[in-house]
Amino acid sequence: MKKGLIIVHTGNGKGKTTAALGLAFRALGNGFKVCMIQFIKGTWKYGELEAAKKFENFEILPMGKGFVNLGADKPNPEDVKAANEAFEKAKEAILSNNYDMVILDEINYAISYKLIKVDDVVNLLQNKPDKVHIVLTGRNAHEKVIDIADLVTEMKEIKHPYQKGIKAQKGIEF
Amino acid sequence: MKKGLIIVHTGNGKGKTTAALGLAFRALGNGFKVCMIQFIKGTWKYGELEAAKKFENFEILPMGKGFVNLGADKPNPEDVKAANEAFEKAKEAILSNNYDMVILDEINYAISYKLIKVDDVVNLLQNKPDKVHIVLTGRNAHEKVIDIADLVTEMKEIKHPYQKGIKAQKGIEF
Repeated sequence: MKKGLIIVHTGNGKGKTTAALGLAFRALGNGFKVCMIQFIKGTWKYGELEAAKKFENFEILPMGKGFVNLGADKPNPEDVKAANEAFEKAKEAILSNNYDMVILDEINYAISYKLIKVDDVVNLLQNKPDKVHIVLTGRNAHEKVIDIADLVTEMKEIKHPYQKGIKAQKGIEF
Repeated sequence: MKKGLIIVHTGNGKGKTTAALGLAFRALGNGFKVCMIQFIKGTWKYGELEAAKKFENFEILPMGKGFVNLGADKPNPEDVKAANEAFEKAKEAILSNNYDMVILDEINYAISYKLIKVDDVVNLLQNKPDKVHIVLTGRNAHEKVIDIADLVTEMKEIKHPYQKGIKAQKGIEF
């Protein structure tokens, strides 16, 4: 039986979610079933949601809340609730063995802001069905997640349009 | 008029072409017209080519040769010819103003192995129609390309499955 990979896209640059989207389309083109769970709402925009509709094997579950309160010492209980609901859905999707690929979008962010427990995530990854590929995106991937991963890429920002005073472009950033 | 961005995906990690593919699907979902020109043949595999067929506004031109002879002091004339043909097509596609996004896949590689001239590429980027977004992928992006770019992301390999002795997986890497 083929072994599914644990893939991590992290770093401060762009392309973490975009590359996950690219992996999803590649997998869909191979006839795979893909599920994407958003831990932070709103990172997938109109363009990709429209494109995703072309594929009946692509399921997107927008679960998380819009924004995490970064300033607070303790995470907002509502954010914790939303992130844990997303995690329950992720567990269900992965353990169902119904999908060839499950994308946990911005889960690193949810771990890093202590909305969900890293040990629960590691435990799920350890017990995933063999064939399923898991893609975890978001900044500040936890060391324990990197340890268990097969493929880790850091997307590093070298230059950003905001540095040149250009606003976000439709179809590119939103 | 909206300004199209010059976007570079470089670095030794995975995800450069995959993130370009993600950008393409996002743009297609927004109703944009996208053209992708391959400077090195074979980097886009069955999965994405199949997925691309779902979108009538997505044109893929596989132009380059399969492999560049890395060992030689001078590039193989056949590789030079193929890369220059790809560059002519790129020029045509960009200057036609028919596309909202043109992806020059692995062009950095072609520049770095001196198959095409960096000054020709910079000149084309300087003279591109305002609205068109250009995405340039490949390792070792040239300094002059980075200078003219709006958005540059380095995909950095932190961990690779080959390090764990796992072979390429269908739907992920081919």
